[in-house]
Amino acid sequence: MKKLVGAAIIGQSGGPTSVINASAAGVFLTALKSEDITAVYGAKHGIKGILNEEFYDISQEELSELKLLKNTPSSMIGSVRYKLKDPAKDPADYNRLLEVFKKYNIRYFFYNGGNDSMDTAHKISLFFQSQNYECRIIGIPKTIDNDLYGTDHCPGYGSAAKYVATTLMEIYHDATVYDTEMVTVVEIMGRNAGWLTAAAQLAVDKGQGPDLIYLPEITFDYDDFFSDVEKTLNKKGNVIIAISEGVKDQDGKYIPEKYSTLATDSFGHAQLGGTASVLANEIQKKFNVKVRGIEFSLMQRCAAHLASATDVEEAFNAGAEAVNSALAGYSDYMIGFERISNSPYEIKYIHIPLENVANYEKKVPLEWIKPHGQGLTREFSEYALPLIQGEDKAPLINGLPRFAQLKKVLVKK
Amino acid sequence: MKKLVGAAIIGQSGGPTSVINASAAGVFLTALKSEDITAVYGAKHGIKGILNEEFYDISQEELSELKLLKNTPSSMIGSVRYKLKDPAKDPADYNRLLEVFKKYNIRYFFYNGGNDSMDTAHKISLFFQSQNYECRIIGIPKTIDNDLYGTDHCPGYGSAAKYVATTLMEIYHDATVYDTEMVTVVEIMGRNAGWLTAAAQLAVDKGQGPDLIYLPEITFDYDDFFSDVEKTLNKKGNVIIAISEGVKDQDGKYIPEKYSTLATDSFGHAQLGGTASVLANEIQKKFNVKVRGIEFSLMQRCAAHLASATDVEEAFNAGAEAVNSALAGYSDYMIGFERISNSPYEIKYIHIPLENVANYEKKVPLEWIKPHGQGLTREFSEYALPLIQGEDKAPLINGLPRFAQLKKVLVKK
Repeated sequence: MKKLVGAAIIGQSGGPTSVINASAAGVFLTALKSEDITAVYGAKHGIKGILNEEFYDISQEELSELKLLKNTPSSMIGSVRYKLKDPAKDPADYNRLLEVFKKYNIRYFFYNGGNDSMDTAHKISLFFQSQNYECRIIGIPKTIDNDLYGTDHCPGYGSAAKYVATTLMEIYHDATVYDTEMVTVVEIMGRNAGWLTAAAQLAVDKGQGPDLIYLPEITFDYDDFFSDVEKTLNKKGNVIIAISEGVKDQDGKYIPEKYSTLATDSFGHAQLGGTASVLANEIQKKFNVKVRGIEFSLMQRCAAHLASATDVEEAFNAGAEAVNSALAGYSDYMIGFERISNSPYEIKYIHIPLENVANYEKKVPLEWIKPHGQGLTREFSEYALPLIQGEDKAPLINGLPRFAQLKKVLVKK
Repeated sequence: MKKLVGAAIIGQSGGPTSVINASAAGVFLTALKSEDITAVYGAKHGIKGILNEEFYDISQEELSELKLLKNTPSSMIGSVRYKLKDPAKDPADYNRLLEVFKKYNIRYFFYNGGNDSMDTAHKISLFFQSQNYECRIIGIPKTIDNDLYGTDHCPGYGSAAKYVATTLMEIYHDATVYDTEMVTVVEIMGRNAGWLTAAAQLAVDKGQGPDLIYLPEITFDYDDFFSDVEKTLNKKGNVIIAISEGVKDQDGKYIPEKYSTLATDSFGHAQLGGTASVLANEIQKKFNVKVRGIEFSLMQRCAAHLASATDVEEAFNAGAEAVNSALAGYSDYMIGFERISNSPYEIKYIHIPLENVANYEKKVPLEWIKPHGQGLTREFSEYALPLIQGEDKAPLINGLPRFAQLKKVLVKK
């Protein structure tokens, strides 16, 4: 392995999670210790920060604050949704990146995100190779959607799944206290893959979960749905439904789109309610029962107070592995997890070519999904349960979390 | 004090909280130890359970499960929203209650709820006195709204306030990660009193809270509001707003009512969006920025995993005090808290005549509320901070909470 001496930079990209900062902590604390790495930078708002030459000098931060990043939700150095163009058509961004990398002698680039981010990292890797600029580029997975190719699961998923299962158990207790008929619809994130909604099954396994679960992997049938709701209502008088925001009907339409003609704003735009509120409204009209629509919204991805210790540890380790792999000569790979066993739970860290990860979505296996909203099979629970184990959260000061506070000293241009 | 021997019953009433079961545990565990109390019953769905002669025999439950009630959210024996009529006009319910109390020799009645429940308990107390039926009736306060008369604060508030402050801090981290303009509107419960929304100030005090806070104590002015949003948006590019669901404009209308003409369902009913989604929608139209409406919904009142230890302990003690007070001869009172000092935090348990509590709402003092959504004064934070201290939650089994499991053995009629 050839020794490569230069600066390292990390960018955070896409929607936040409870543990994306834990991966950043893994990168920072490992990179700061390396003799080959001459400077450690954090890109302000991901790739945009590099293009704009705006990055933080991480060596200026207190080590104790960098450690607190493990339990600080969201993307501390700023995230971005920015898709690089095809370099064959528009190489401007790539040339600019190369210019900046050269100026600061950046030889290690870590990008923490979902499949779009892995695509970005791979494209940069190819471009730098074509320009004979030596730079080791490693992707670090991150997504509550858990839909990245090649890895058993993704950092961020375990904590979000723990939030979903715990909160549904609590809602089960709350939504069933009256002796009147009631339907509660809970909307969970996940545009194309239903992994997070599937975590509702973990609450069902405890006897304190939703009655019906709908994932985007299965085409949503309105007749079946209302019939399933009616049956459950007649049997139990109280129905709790967990549904993915990404559910689509046979016309490929999201649920709010179907009902969007009801209301338009003053510009004629359709006013989209969320899936939960739209369905709750329809159920109210059809069955004349009390309804409640609930969206887990940002809470499901930023509830660091309820993070899974397993998830925090793996996210941190993925960051550390990324640095160590790059130092060992790896490039153009994403760090992934391979599961060795469920009981005791054991994984090993692996390298997945970025090219394979880019733009591919891993969905819940269809054979794990029961028909008619009847939840997930045992295989899913055995898969998911190890990922939500343990607790690891920020220390409390005066009853509230003490999150990391970074000085965020920008590197002089 | 005259010794009174007979059965005791407790009812849970109104909207659940994280700690209403902690008060039930306080009643159960104290009453089961008393020699004067011959049986301990839990009314199924509050006053309705008594009218229907449906109550659980608490002596059949495992003590370990009753202890777990301290950390089990919502109303384990079932809640109810049922308002007794004026006994002068319709004494049927009262006569039926008396019949049931006599049949089972119930001499102790504990009712755990808000001001409606205290009104119910007081009316029953007066009726029983008029019929010369000796029964000691004690109310136990409960409400996340924190609006009961005569008590410094109410069980349930501290935990809900801790949820609001913690979650807003997490949302602050999540909602500010992009470098694009964005407005996040968070809707918090509280129809008439803004105590729970005011807890947003505790996140502001940490530098990680909303920019604007709106309580129902202040008439909502649309022009002021949009102007305040615009100013903050121009200054910061990112705005987080905490607003009570109970906010009303100068015509006495809730915010969703103002915009309800946009859509009506097939029966002609107005389709009400929530305050957050309606305002987010208006802000999007006015300023053409990315918006997100978030409702804390049931989570703010049932997130037992985030309960305040202070709240759990006080709720339990309020239940225990209710039993001990009744055994000591008190009747027609609610247990309340009087604050002795803030630092160190110290309270004493007091007795407040039910008559005074019934149907009175205690609001946030106007002098604590800053104009233009600028939050609350130091006095509020000093008041609220002690109430969110400490953690006390259900043990985790396999990563998820182990809530109480009651056998719920109905007493034979």
